[in-house]
Amino acid sequence: MNRDKAQVRQVLDAVKAAGRASLTAPEGERVCNAYGIAVPQEGVAASAAEAHQLAAAIGFPVVMKIVSPDILHKTEAGGVLVGVKNADDAAKGFDTIVANAKKHKADAQILGVQVQQMLRGGQEVIVGAVTDDSFGKLVAFGLGGVLVEVLKDITFRLAPATTEDALSMLDGIQAAEMLKGVRGSEPVDREALAKLIVGVSELVSDFPEIAEMDLNPVFASKDGAIAADVRIVVDFAARKPRYRPAEADVLSAMKRIMQPKAVAVIGASAEDGKIGNSVMKNLINGGYKGNIYPIHPKAGEILGYKAFKSVKDVPGEIDTAVFAIPGEFVAGALAECGEKKVAGAVLIPSGFAEVGQHAMQEEIVAVGRKYNVRLMGPNIYGFYYTPANLCATFCTAYDVKGSVALSSQSGGIGMAIIGYSRSAKMGVSAIVGLGNKSDIDEDDLLIFFEQDPNTKVIAQHCEDLKDGRAFAEVARRVSKKKPVIVLKAGRTPAGAKAARSHTGALAGNDKIYEDVFKQVGVIRARSLRDLLDFARAVPMLPTPKGENVVIITGAGGSGVLLADACVDNKLSLMPMPDDLDKAFRKFIPPFGAAGNPVDITGGQPPQTYKNAVLLGLQDERIHALILGYWHTIITPPMTFARIIVEAHDEMRAKGIEKPMVASLAGDVEVEEAAQYLYEHGIPAYAYSTEIPVAVLGAKYQWARGAGLL
Amino acid sequence: MNRDKAQVRQVLDAVKAAGRASLTAPEGERVCNAYGIAVPQEGVAASAAEAHQLAAAIGFPVVMKIVSPDILHKTEAGGVLVGVKNADDAAKGFDTIVANAKKHKADAQILGVQVQQMLRGGQEVIVGAVTDDSFGKLVAFGLGGVLVEVLKDITFRLAPATTEDALSMLDGIQAAEMLKGVRGSEPVDREALAKLIVGVSELVSDFPEIAEMDLNPVFASKDGAIAADVRIVVDFAARKPRYRPAEADVLSAMKRIMQPKAVAVIGASAEDGKIGNSVMKNLINGGYKGNIYPIHPKAGEILGYKAFKSVKDVPGEIDTAVFAIPGEFVAGALAECGEKKVAGAVLIPSGFAEVGQHAMQEEIVAVGRKYNVRLMGPNIYGFYYTPANLCATFCTAYDVKGSVALSSQSGGIGMAIIGYSRSAKMGVSAIVGLGNKSDIDEDDLLIFFEQDPNTKVIAQHCEDLKDGRAFAEVARRVSKKKPVIVLKAGRTPAGAKAARSHTGALAGNDKIYEDVFKQVGVIRARSLRDLLDFARAVPMLPTPKGENVVIITGAGGSGVLLADACVDNKLSLMPMPDDLDKAFRKFIPPFGAAGNPVDITGGQPPQTYKNAVLLGLQDERIHALILGYWHTIITPPMTFARIIVEAHDEMRAKGIEKPMVASLAGDVEVEEAAQYLYEHGIPAYAYSTEIPVAVLGAKYQWARGAGLL
Repeated sequence: MNRDKAQVRQVLDAVKAAGRASLTAPEGERVCNAYGIAVPQEGVAASAAEAHQLAAAIGFPVVMKIVSPDILHKTEAGGVLVGVKNADDAAKGFDTIVANAKKHKADAQILGVQVQQMLRGGQEVIVGAVTDDSFGKLVAFGLGGVLVEVLKDITFRLAPATTEDALSMLDGIQAAEMLKGVRGSEPVDREALAKLIVGVSELVSDFPEIAEMDLNPVFASKDGAIAADVRIVVDFAARKPRYRPAEADVLSAMKRIMQPKAVAVIGASAEDGKIGNSVMKNLINGGYKGNIYPIHPKAGEILGYKAFKSVKDVPGEIDTAVFAIPGEFVAGALAECGEKKVAGAVLIPSGFAEVGQHAMQEEIVAVGRKYNVRLMGPNIYGFYYTPANLCATFCTAYDVKGSVALSSQSGGIGMAIIGYSRSAKMGVSAIVGLGNKSDIDEDDLLIFFEQDPNTKVIAQHCEDLKDGRAFAEVARRVSKKKPVIVLKAGRTPAGAKAARSHTGALAGNDKIYEDVFKQVGVIRARSLRDLLDFARAVPMLPTPKGENVVIITGAGGSGVLLADACVDNKLSLMPMPDDLDKAFRKFIPPFGAAGNPVDITGGQPPQTYKNAVLLGLQDERIHALILGYWHTIITPPMTFARIIVEAHDEMRAKGIEKPMVASLAGDVEVEEAAQYLYEHGIPAYAYSTEIPVAVLGAKYQWARGAGLL
Repeated sequence: MNRDKAQVRQVLDAVKAAGRASLTAPEGERVCNAYGIAVPQEGVAASAAEAHQLAAAIGFPVVMKIVSPDILHKTEAGGVLVGVKNADDAAKGFDTIVANAKKHKADAQILGVQVQQMLRGGQEVIVGAVTDDSFGKLVAFGLGGVLVEVLKDITFRLAPATTEDALSMLDGIQAAEMLKGVRGSEPVDREALAKLIVGVSELVSDFPEIAEMDLNPVFASKDGAIAADVRIVVDFAARKPRYRPAEADVLSAMKRIMQPKAVAVIGASAEDGKIGNSVMKNLINGGYKGNIYPIHPKAGEILGYKAFKSVKDVPGEIDTAVFAIPGEFVAGALAECGEKKVAGAVLIPSGFAEVGQHAMQEEIVAVGRKYNVRLMGPNIYGFYYTPANLCATFCTAYDVKGSVALSSQSGGIGMAIIGYSRSAKMGVSAIVGLGNKSDIDEDDLLIFFEQDPNTKVIAQHCEDLKDGRAFAEVARRVSKKKPVIVLKAGRTPAGAKAARSHTGALAGNDKIYEDVFKQVGVIRARSLRDLLDFARAVPMLPTPKGENVVIITGAGGSGVLLADACVDNKLSLMPMPDDLDKAFRKFIPPFGAAGNPVDITGGQPPQTYKNAVLLGLQDERIHALILGYWHTIITPPMTFARIIVEAHDEMRAKGIEKPMVASLAGDVEVEEAAQYLYEHGIPAYAYSTEIPVAVLGAKYQWARGAGLL
């Protein structure tokens, strides 16, 4: 699209030169015109006579508004007249508006009165833009009007937004139906509205000094989308660009850190109970095969390993240095690591920004930058990378290998991850503590795990994203290949910042995370258990080939709850075709319900479950199965589990793989059966109808976001 | 309030006599006037001259509308003129409307043209009423306009509604802020609006033949609430009243059934694997102390108990008869039970309505009614009542005694309840299967458990309520004394019935359950796990004395997630008073955060946790505590658990009891610690920050509903 950047630059330069923080309406319209954002016909009258002439040329009715850099809220100043019906009224209106404005603010500089084509009909919407500390420029869309403000029904996307992003915004508000034409009104021109949104998003991206922007209202109708009022707030103060190494450098450093050939333990100790002792033991007992170099000022050897006074004394290369020394000594030891060209420092020590010692943290960050040593932490438990049998942490060793890479910002949540993983026998590739995130953060991990063949799913807990923009850009790419699941804590609204636009006032921090995650294909976990359940089950499920989900249940009651959960998790229950209905009915009693859920009824032998599941796996119209088991004497839990695994394996041998999850209702033996199913590739849950469906829903959400469905 | 019932009766009689299914506008207004529902000044003109005169008397502008029993949708027929500005236009308008109406429907009976005061300004709202199959008359409230229809932002209450109910409706819509005055508009007259809602709710309750009603729009402003348009749909077909025994009879029968002195097992068997054998064994091995009478056509004794051919042959009284015979023999045996004056039949057999055998079910219902034998089921697993060591079921015995009474409509869900209860060591007073609910249903159970001293909390799973009105009436009373938790399955929208009003079209079945549960103080569980978690924890928590919740956490990360969960569960984090802040700071490191959450930081010894918890329990401004534990070497999980129990017990000895829940983040040992805490009265959860807060939230929701807060 043609963008007249010079035009915008000229306007902004003039605003800057005048020391103003916002644009006048005519300036705003010039800027809009330059980016193909439709605005009404209009002009500025310097006198009543000019208003008369201008209004007659535009046609009636017109709207008249004061033009003054000193009056931001025009209506309150009596500076707006709507529905002016003829040229004489326009002339009189000019005088009224100017008089009101002077009364409102005697010294206001009055540049004239804007006379504008009055727009009516269609749907009033708001399009805007804000600048977020973490995500940078965002474009916003919502319906206009007071009610929508009350409901906060507004949606955000990273700017610049694609046409596809913009169209998704139209469907991304609660009141989306309004745009499709209700009660006989005609649907709006979606393409025109999307074009306008894209224009705004490109404008604010091209000109970072545009801090906030409101097009409010935009009249959207079947004939197009025209912005009736433009408000642009600027901020010419230069923003410090974030430090961000090139991706190739990130990757090569992260590979050395996560898969080191040699690890130094700074502050290694032979004394039980010391952190430096626990780290040594975990490295050794964890089975790490690389070199281990304990660093200690005096010791000759620690736990059988030759010790060194400094990393600089170590003969070979060191990739990763795990720090187990008090915080005040970190900077010095880090500089030595820098001289030794260590790739990364795992900073277990605390006592930095988390306790208000910001200067101390800035110091180590500066040392790291100077020597190009990447920092993990400080204030962390360390990390595990199971493919290398690497437990670079003072917590207990962890050895259930698998394909999930987890990380946490908080140590407590990290411990919960470790405990749950062990308890639920969840195989992990890595568990990483990020702590204060002075340097390495979520996007660095994404870059490493993206290419790590041992990792199939990435699950992260975070309280904030230091650089949401960087995260989003990497996550958008990575999530196309591997599911990225994030538990974003801290949803309680923080003190809202003073905003100078409606869009700004409506921009809740959490809503932005919500929308950006969706935009870049990140699955948002709603709770810690969800994060853990999704991490455990999602990598195990094959990718579905379509949206048709079928429930096969022995318990009618479970079927109803499973169907509810499908609605909650945006899964589509396939309407059962007649021939398939008949085929299912062959296996089930006459009073069983085929349809969907397929209710095979409770008193059935194992073979009924198996036949129904085999049919479900074989029929190509069905893309995923949800099983509901009911504990009976005829089909005890382990019998059910074994026969389902048989069916699953038989089909897999024939090349048929579909996601399948199970809900088990019964006495305590169902726990063992659930574990058996899980160990054989079928996520299964005792006493829950909602978790199995939620994990399937997460897999679907990922597959849709990655464009695989 | 004065209600002119005679006036309404007269109107309805006329409508019935005319064979009409809806009221004309003037009829609707007469009905409204009779119930104090404000409507605009108006009159009906029979000629253009009358319209001229009437309009002049009312004042301008006026609205004019066709009056015809044959035209329901007046706007579509060209039968409405708004904003008529003077008397001449009113005269012309009369002719236009009549001409349009005749064009629309040549044979329409035209009664005249209504001339009405035109209302403007304020907030347009809709007030209506519907008749629900299960709940009967419901009154509805929402904002007017298309957007609200799209968002389905409407709320329901059982009619008649109290003024308090009506006021809660104004706060019960998403867009509630709109009524409080936004962007400088004035708040509406809440009392006037509530009065109008109450009027509608009483009208439809007093006159059941009013099937649906719409006041749309109602203009609500600071000056009052006036219904601008009235639509009333009537249905004179008599509704069959539901069978409902007197409450005293329900209670005396339920007491005999649940706490029987003697139980007969019809179809008792000595043969392993038979249902009649399992029931006998469960009764005997469960430790039931009353008389057990096996009924069998031939056997002399079964499992050491003298057998009888029929219940009629048993010498003493029988309270409860458990049926373990094929469905087709139930009716006959039931009649014998009737003659024997058995209080209740526990109908395990299936093969009734659930497989389409409705006649068979109707037959047993008729027999039960005839002899006054209450029926549990058919198609159930039976029931447990642990205070009497009674396992009247073919499932495995259950013996963990406690204070939760659970029930399920579905057998599968019942098995999940048993399994979870056993696994989580949840103490229960009863588990009851309701199955087809041919007779005994949720409200019968409520009536029994209300007075049962062994039951503190009632948790029920249901797919429907056969008589929602009866349930609601009982639940409203019982929930004031004991928490009632319900998992209502089947939220997927069923085929919407054809509705003749806006209110009807907006009345989603699930929304009605949601609102009525709230109205009568029932806690709605959102999932099976929620039902089970709430049932397990809520009875253990003392009732809070106020809304001030404080989080005390060793893990900052857990604190953030716990605070999020407080927002989700509508709990109020107390703003920390300065003196209390200082008091907490005495126990925690200088960099720890007092405030709320109180972050004692991770590396603290057990005494720090204990001191903080003691302070939290002792200070009267704090009403509930949420603990976040972080597994460290200094304070291992069981050490934490023991010290918290100590603090809890010390305070209880001093008469201080506050609800306290815990979230445990750590390695697998936290599971044992969580169980220990639970067993000592503190609901605690490993690897979850959301479940502890959700159960506390459920307790608060109950306490608020019961008027205890």
